[in-house]
Amino acid sequence: MERYARRADRALDRYLSVGRHPGLREAMRWTPMAGGKRLRPVLAMMVGEAVAGARAATAALPVGVALEVIHNFTLVHDDIMDRSPMRRGRPSVHKKWGDATAINAGDALFARAFEVALDAPGPDAVRVELVGELASMVRGIAEGQQMDMDFERARVVTRGEYLGMVELKTSLMFSTGAYCAARVAGAAPAVAEGLREYGRRTGTSFQVQDDILDCFADQAALGKPVGRDIRNGKRTLLAIDTLGSLKGAKLRRFRAAYGRQAAPAAAVRAAVALMEGCGALDRARRFARREGERAVRELDALPPSPARDRLEAFVYFMTSRTV
Amino acid sequence: MERYARRADRALDRYLSVGRHPGLREAMRWTPMAGGKRLRPVLAMMVGEAVAGARAATAALPVGVALEVIHNFTLVHDDIMDRSPMRRGRPSVHKKWGDATAINAGDALFARAFEVALDAPGPDAVRVELVGELASMVRGIAEGQQMDMDFERARVVTRGEYLGMVELKTSLMFSTGAYCAARVAGAAPAVAEGLREYGRRTGTSFQVQDDILDCFADQAALGKPVGRDIRNGKRTLLAIDTLGSLKGAKLRRFRAAYGRQAAPAAAVRAAVALMEGCGALDRARRFARREGERAVRELDALPPSPARDRLEAFVYFMTSRTV
Repeated sequence: MERYARRADRALDRYLSVGRHPGLREAMRWTPMAGGKRLRPVLAMMVGEAVAGARAATAALPVGVALEVIHNFTLVHDDIMDRSPMRRGRPSVHKKWGDATAINAGDALFARAFEVALDAPGPDAVRVELVGELASMVRGIAEGQQMDMDFERARVVTRGEYLGMVELKTSLMFSTGAYCAARVAGAAPAVAEGLREYGRRTGTSFQVQDDILDCFADQAALGKPVGRDIRNGKRTLLAIDTLGSLKGAKLRRFRAAYGRQAAPAAAVRAAVALMEGCGALDRARRFARREGERAVRELDALPPSPARDRLEAFVYFMTSRTV
Repeated sequence: MERYARRADRALDRYLSVGRHPGLREAMRWTPMAGGKRLRPVLAMMVGEAVAGARAATAALPVGVALEVIHNFTLVHDDIMDRSPMRRGRPSVHKKWGDATAINAGDALFARAFEVALDAPGPDAVRVELVGELASMVRGIAEGQQMDMDFERARVVTRGEYLGMVELKTSLMFSTGAYCAARVAGAAPAVAEGLREYGRRTGTSFQVQDDILDCFADQAALGKPVGRDIRNGKRTLLAIDTLGSLKGAKLRRFRAAYGRQAAPAAAVRAAVALMEGCGALDRARRFARREGERAVRELDALPPSPARDRLEAFVYFMTSRTV
């Protein structure tokens, strides 16, 4: 996986060395070149290889880089929407250059992603399919983002509503990525659909694990304050479950930190302890694990290979990672 | 032209009746469905018809609608960047729903444009070409927008810099549109390149005429305050020429309104009179006319037809319009 991630880094660097406006180019490169786990390109390359061998990993690289560019474009725009001042240990693009340049850099990244995707080898029919998949994916992500913003003002968000939002905002990029990588590697539509389902469930378990880490990770390893979601009153699976499980004094104690930006660290720690105490943490972990297991089951349709084993390991990596 | 514009309206309405999130859909439709001249789809359909007859106008419709959707996505984002409160006589999207929803709606429109473009008939190879053209066009538009923002802080902007910016921010959409419509209609690349040049020069003359109208149009017909560019200190061909032509007291009088938001109407009227008095208005008009003539000359490569005549009339419409 490390090797795939470094290949993705190099390809990303190359694909983003374009443009006639040096200032815009710098703003475009700021977030993607600041690092990141490159999960999406790694996934795409592994899927390609599992479908059709090592050369197909290379064929799937443009799909993976296009996804990474789209992922970064959404980060740049989301940071404006959420007024997040930091990203990957640096000021976010809007913080450094202002909203206007950040909006514009995000748009340019989005456009660039389609140029990158067209670099995928193979028949034009597949590339047309690929563009349609990516475009419909971005519309879905925008819908998920809109739901996420709605949730901030909603009095009640159900578990089903939350999972529907995650499906669009997070899982869709993994499911579309796995599907497109499989198609570029030459997989028949039915096989590629199985990999889409693999990607979807992997994405969901990734997001739930992400929510868990926001509350339970080691702060130094996380690189951002622990419990930020709690202070922001973010509706995560953990928070929804906790709000539904606690009563009386415990619920009041949880609410003393939940949704309160100014809550003292001790109150946040108490809220985290309540999430664990009421069983919500365990249930979220079990849910992430179960989604992961279902993802892995989809791999049975592929012939056994080291690449297939890596796709399996990828899921366990996602649901057991500590950062 | 009117008939083409109404067809574009209907197709736009249909193509934008999608999405799972009603609120996002409403924000996406707000600007495009508020009207507009539909110049880009009209151009695409006329090019299609001039290349290969009436049925090719229909073939080029998805290209035209994709351009109109992209045009509207840039309006939604530009209005955030420029803090413009109004658009087509209505509050702009960010004014009505906030910046976050406006950013998101713009992104979703951009994504939708690619889905619309893929609806063009014909061989996959052409659709792949089309996607590449549109993606590279949007990157160019973003670069032009960035230059435009740079100009606000620049001490001096030359005529060449201004025209380079217009080339990207405005003309590129007309040139790409004409090229893509020709290709979808089956034109060979060389013929399509001639139409690209036609579109490019038409776009430039359109923009210069737009700048002229901002200062010299009838306010009621324009639907926005006359002389807004003067108060904003916008670097237009007119303003650059005027700044270079005036001296002494006249220059000081021009500067009393130029770049001063609070300038009284009388000062703006005086500045407009100075633009005319120093010859800048005449020179800008001549420039727009000459670009238009060069655009028309490109049409010689096409066989004579009513559709070709309409492409010629389109240019004269652009450079002589009063609104």
